[in-house]
Amino acid sequence: MASKYQSVQPGGSLIIAWRAQGKKVLIVGGGVVAAGRILHVLNADAHVIVVSPKAGLCKEVAWRIQEKQVEWRDRGFLVEDLSDDVNMVLTAIDDPSLSSEIYKLCKSKKIPVNAADIPPECDFYFGSEIRNGPLQIMVSTNGKGPKLASLIRKKIESSINPATGMALEKTGLLRQKLRDIVPEPENSRKRMRWMIEICELWSLEELAMLDENLINRLLGYFPKKTPSYREITTPAYSKIDNYIWFGAIIISGAVLLKHVSKAR
Amino acid sequence: MASKYQSVQPGGSLIIAWRAQGKKVLIVGGGVVAAGRILHVLNADAHVIVVSPKAGLCKEVAWRIQEKQVEWRDRGFLVEDLSDDVNMVLTAIDDPSLSSEIYKLCKSKKIPVNAADIPPECDFYFGSEIRNGPLQIMVSTNGKGPKLASLIRKKIESSINPATGMALEKTGLLRQKLRDIVPEPENSRKRMRWMIEICELWSLEELAMLDENLINRLLGYFPKKTPSYREITTPAYSKIDNYIWFGAIIISGAVLLKHVSKAR
Repeated sequence: MASKYQSVQPGGSLIIAWRAQGKKVLIVGGGVVAAGRILHVLNADAHVIVVSPKAGLCKEVAWRIQEKQVEWRDRGFLVEDLSDDVNMVLTAIDDPSLSSEIYKLCKSKKIPVNAADIPPECDFYFGSEIRNGPLQIMVSTNGKGPKLASLIRKKIESSINPATGMALEKTGLLRQKLRDIVPEPENSRKRMRWMIEICELWSLEELAMLDENLINRLLGYFPKKTPSYREITTPAYSKIDNYIWFGAIIISGAVLLKHVSKAR
Repeated sequence: MASKYQSVQPGGSLIIAWRAQGKKVLIVGGGVVAAGRILHVLNADAHVIVVSPKAGLCKEVAWRIQEKQVEWRDRGFLVEDLSDDVNMVLTAIDDPSLSSEIYKLCKSKKIPVNAADIPPECDFYFGSEIRNGPLQIMVSTNGKGPKLASLIRKKIESSINPATGMALEKTGLLRQKLRDIVPEPENSRKRMRWMIEICELWSLEELAMLDENLINRLLGYFPKKTPSYREITTPAYSKIDNYIWFGAIIISGAVLLKHVSKAR
C-alpha cells in the first residue's frame, strides 16, 4: 500500500558515533591489525589499554607505547582485564579459540566487542573513513563490495574542499563565542539564523581564515547584519568605494565647469 | 619528534556500524523524534519495540504500528521493559527526569542508550546519513557546525552516481556466486584480483545491469579473462569485428584483381 511515510530500506547497519572520550578501550594483541585499531580509537580520545607480550608487538605499537600514547600490559590476556570500567574490547590476535573465549566473556559482562576478521564475534564493525579536522565521513557498503567501497571513498575524499576541517573548527569557535555573549535561550533562534546566514554567505576558505580578532569584529554585527568577509577584513572598504565615486564626481564637475567657462 | 607513523588526530568520535539485525531495540516515546529513530533502526533490520501510550503517538508511528513494522506497548515506560535481551535503548520523550531515570537504569544494566536532545545521557550519537541501497555514508562534524554538515552532506549526495546502490547489490551477488563455484580458500587471491579487475573495467551503470544470465556468462571467463560489458552482452561482437575486416579484405582484393586484369 502506498504511504506518505518513507518505506523501510532493510539491509543497512546502524551507523553511530560512539562516545569513546576518556573511556577505557581494551585492545588484545599488538600486531599490525592492532596498530590500526589503536590509532582509530586514539583519534576518538579513548584511554587505550594494550594487552600483548613484548614479543607480539609490531614496530608501530611499540612506538606508541614508548610515546606513552597507550597503557601497556606486557603479557597475554587475563580475565581480570575485563574490569567493570572497560567500555569496549577489540581483539586482534591470531588465536581464534582465545578470541572466542574473550568474546563470550565480554557477552556475559555486556561489554561491546569486535574480534578482527571474525564477523560473527562482532557487536559492531569498523568502516572506511575520511577525516579532515572535526569532519568525519564513514563509508560502508555493508560488505557488498570492498573494491567499490574504496573507489567511492576516494571519490568523496577528492571532492572534499581541503579548507573544510579548518572552516568547521573556526565555525565551532564562532558559535561558542556567540553563545558566550548572548547565552539567553530566548536568543537561540536568532543565533541559529545568524550563524546559518554567515555559513551560506562565506566560503569555506573565508571561514577557515577566522581568527580571534576577526571573530570579535564579526560578532559586533550580531544580530542586525551578516557582513561579508571583505567587509570584515577591509572595514573601510564600503566607505572607500563611496569616497572614490564622490571624488570622481567632484573632479568631473570641476573639469566640466572649466570647459563651460572657457567656451564662454 | 617526527615519526613515520600517523600522528593522533584527537577530537573525533568512534564511528562504528552496530549490528542491530534481529536485535531488540527499545524506543521510549511515540512522537516525531521517535518516528525518525524508529525508521533509522528499522533500516538496520532491528526488532523494534515502541513504548508509548496511544495518546502520545504521532501519525507516522501510529501507521508503522498498524503496518506491524514494530512491536507496541500501549503504556508508559516500566522497569521490566529493560529485559536482558534488550540490545539498545533510545528515549525520545519530553520528560527529562524520566529520561534520566531510564539512562541510569540502562547504565546499571550495561545497555547502550541514547536520550534524544540530552547529549550527556548518550553512549552514542546519530549523524547525518546518505543511503543508496547497500551504500551508507555518515557525515559527522562532531557538533562543530550543523549548517556546514548539512551543506557537506548535500554536496556528497549530489556527487553519488545514482547507479551505485544497484551496482553494489549486483557486485555482491557476483562475488557470492564466484565464491560458490570456486570456494577453495587457496583461490581467494585469484577471486579477489578478478573481482577488482571487473570493478575497475566496468562502469557503475554496467555493473548495475548484471542479471543472473549475464552473471553466469561472466563467470565463464574466470579466472583467465575479465571481459568488458560489451563482450558479455554482445557475445559475438569481437568475432563480428573480425568477419567485417575479413570480408572487407576479400572484396577489396577481388576489386583490385578485376582492375588489374582489365588493365592488361
